[in-house]
Amino acid sequence: GAAPAVVNAQATIRWRLASSFPKSLDTIFGAAEEFSRQVSALTGGKFVISVHAGGELMPAFGVLDGVSNATVECAHTAPYYFFGKDPTYALDCAIPFGLNSRQMTAWMYEGNGLKLLREFYAKSNIVNFPMGNTGAQMGGWFRKPITSIADMKGLKMRIGGFGGKVLERVGAVPQNIPGGEIYQALEKGTIDAAEWVGPYDDLKLGFFKVAPHYHYPGWWEGGPQLSLYVNSKAYEGLSAEYKAVIENAAALAHVDMQAKYDGRNPAALKTLVGSGTKLHRFPKDVMDASFKAAMEVYAELNASNPAWKKIYEDYSNFRRDQNLWFRFTEAGFDDFMQQQKL
Amino acid sequence: GAAPAVVNAQATIRWRLASSFPKSLDTIFGAAEEFSRQVSALTGGKFVISVHAGGELMPAFGVLDGVSNATVECAHTAPYYFFGKDPTYALDCAIPFGLNSRQMTAWMYEGNGLKLLREFYAKSNIVNFPMGNTGAQMGGWFRKPITSIADMKGLKMRIGGFGGKVLERVGAVPQNIPGGEIYQALEKGTIDAAEWVGPYDDLKLGFFKVAPHYHYPGWWEGGPQLSLYVNSKAYEGLSAEYKAVIENAAALAHVDMQAKYDGRNPAALKTLVGSGTKLHRFPKDVMDASFKAAMEVYAELNASNPAWKKIYEDYSNFRRDQNLWFRFTEAGFDDFMQQQKL
Repeated sequence: GAAPAVVNAQATIRWRLASSFPKSLDTIFGAAEEFSRQVSALTGGKFVISVHAGGELMPAFGVLDGVSNATVECAHTAPYYFFGKDPTYALDCAIPFGLNSRQMTAWMYEGNGLKLLREFYAKSNIVNFPMGNTGAQMGGWFRKPITSIADMKGLKMRIGGFGGKVLERVGAVPQNIPGGEIYQALEKGTIDAAEWVGPYDDLKLGFFKVAPHYHYPGWWEGGPQLSLYVNSKAYEGLSAEYKAVIENAAALAHVDMQAKYDGRNPAALKTLVGSGTKLHRFPKDVMDASFKAAMEVYAELNASNPAWKKIYEDYSNFRRDQNLWFRFTEAGFDDFMQQQKL
Repeated sequence: GAAPAVVNAQATIRWRLASSFPKSLDTIFGAAEEFSRQVSALTGGKFVISVHAGGELMPAFGVLDGVSNATVECAHTAPYYFFGKDPTYALDCAIPFGLNSRQMTAWMYEGNGLKLLREFYAKSNIVNFPMGNTGAQMGGWFRKPITSIADMKGLKMRIGGFGGKVLERVGAVPQNIPGGEIYQALEKGTIDAAEWVGPYDDLKLGFFKVAPHYHYPGWWEGGPQLSLYVNSKAYEGLSAEYKAVIENAAALAHVDMQAKYDGRNPAALKTLVGSGTKLHRFPKDVMDASFKAAMEVYAELNASNPAWKKIYEDYSNFRRDQNLWFRFTEAGFDDFMQQQKL
């Protein structure tokens, strides 16, 4: 008989992934590429996901709607970009004085994070997966060092979303400027300060040449998590096997992206310091005032936004318990090691 | 024609995984179960790995030979168990004053760790994959609190491998006692102290009832990594697709195990403290003397063991750079958060 040699071969599935990031952010953009590579490897090339940089298929911030409307099957983004639509999205990424990278992963994988966020995203036809984290970001580049909270008054700082909202309450003036225009604005003095990511990404943009004071910690992003968004109808159309492919490949890309930042930041920091960058810890009164302002914002959101309240309550309990535990053996070990001549 | 309905179906592959752990260590043993579950899910049940507790197929510490000799196709273990064969194995797990959990993952995924360890394992016919981490362990349970280095002299402490070797140099007397016999030895005073894992596992064994002083940090295990060992011939016999299945499922189990410990330790710590456990940081002179002793051991190994020297050189450079970087924004953020009323 002329029975085909292979009658059960699964047809090739082709998806598109819209990234919110430019290719130049190779560590973040690269997480989506790594995900796509793993999906293909796991399926013998039968599940192919093409990865598109921000702006290629849709605007960088249009990916939430793009996945929701099934313009694309999936996206890779930093959910706090959608803070303006609803601050609840930021709980899937970072909020000021939130969880650090490991704690965020623990909340997603072992705590209630993934469950609660999946419920939240369901109304947008999105199934979310944690996919990458930068670790604690730096507090950004300042033309003059910040010596006390008084220096924050009137400070024009390039900073997005939630961080900006809190900074405003301590007197700063947040500015919305695309990555590509920050250098010139800092150089001209149109702005006084700008935050970006950390040494590895910041070095490439050269901010140290025009604003050499590099403050830390970036308390508005203590462990920002990136998210894979999958359109729920596209997801439900997959076999159980291919659903597992998505989950496992996202997990590999998740751990790999944090490892890349951890591995690459130290050398970039050395180069920056060798090129004249001055490192400064934010003064305690800046930290304290910002913390107080952030807690006020959260109390207001608890009162006005039920979706936020439901998830933030779980998140903040988890954060309290995590910090209670991490202060002992993790901090005790790290603190000692950081003081040694190694 | 009577052509079979499916002519290209991959035959089912059945492997056995020998764990070094008892089922009671559900978080560690569970990582192997999670790995097996993902392998099955990724292959539609066509690649089945049965998971066997320590002692079931071979002794807990026999798994290195078991995989090397292809008695089983794979194992899940803590490579520092093989410290007696060669201390180099410990670099795939934990050494005193080594990398923390995130740094270890960064060394494996982004640094040279995986590459160098694969070369080392090749002579044993093993392909290794990082698969889980407990995070920084606690320093263990003491019948009397340690107030200075003088209290370490003659102290009989249950502690294994590398940690014991260093403790010996500061005057303690390391004891080798299986997990199930620690409680009685502590109760009778046959030993003065014992280390196990951290709050979640330690609570189950009830040590707080007989040795209530719980010291931290466990400087001999700042981020012990578990390893999946796969027999290299079995591995090479897999399709590219199934090789990717192993890698991705191990990555998911890797991130999931750390998340489980991070998620579960805080509640256990609260229970312990509520039951009379006293938390104490190790005195600075104990940390300093132990650090010095560890560095002496490493210098001796560098001189006597070329395999160690090659990998430790890379490891220690990585450790230096990681701690240089982590002391700024990561530590600055964590330190502030741990001081807040959350």
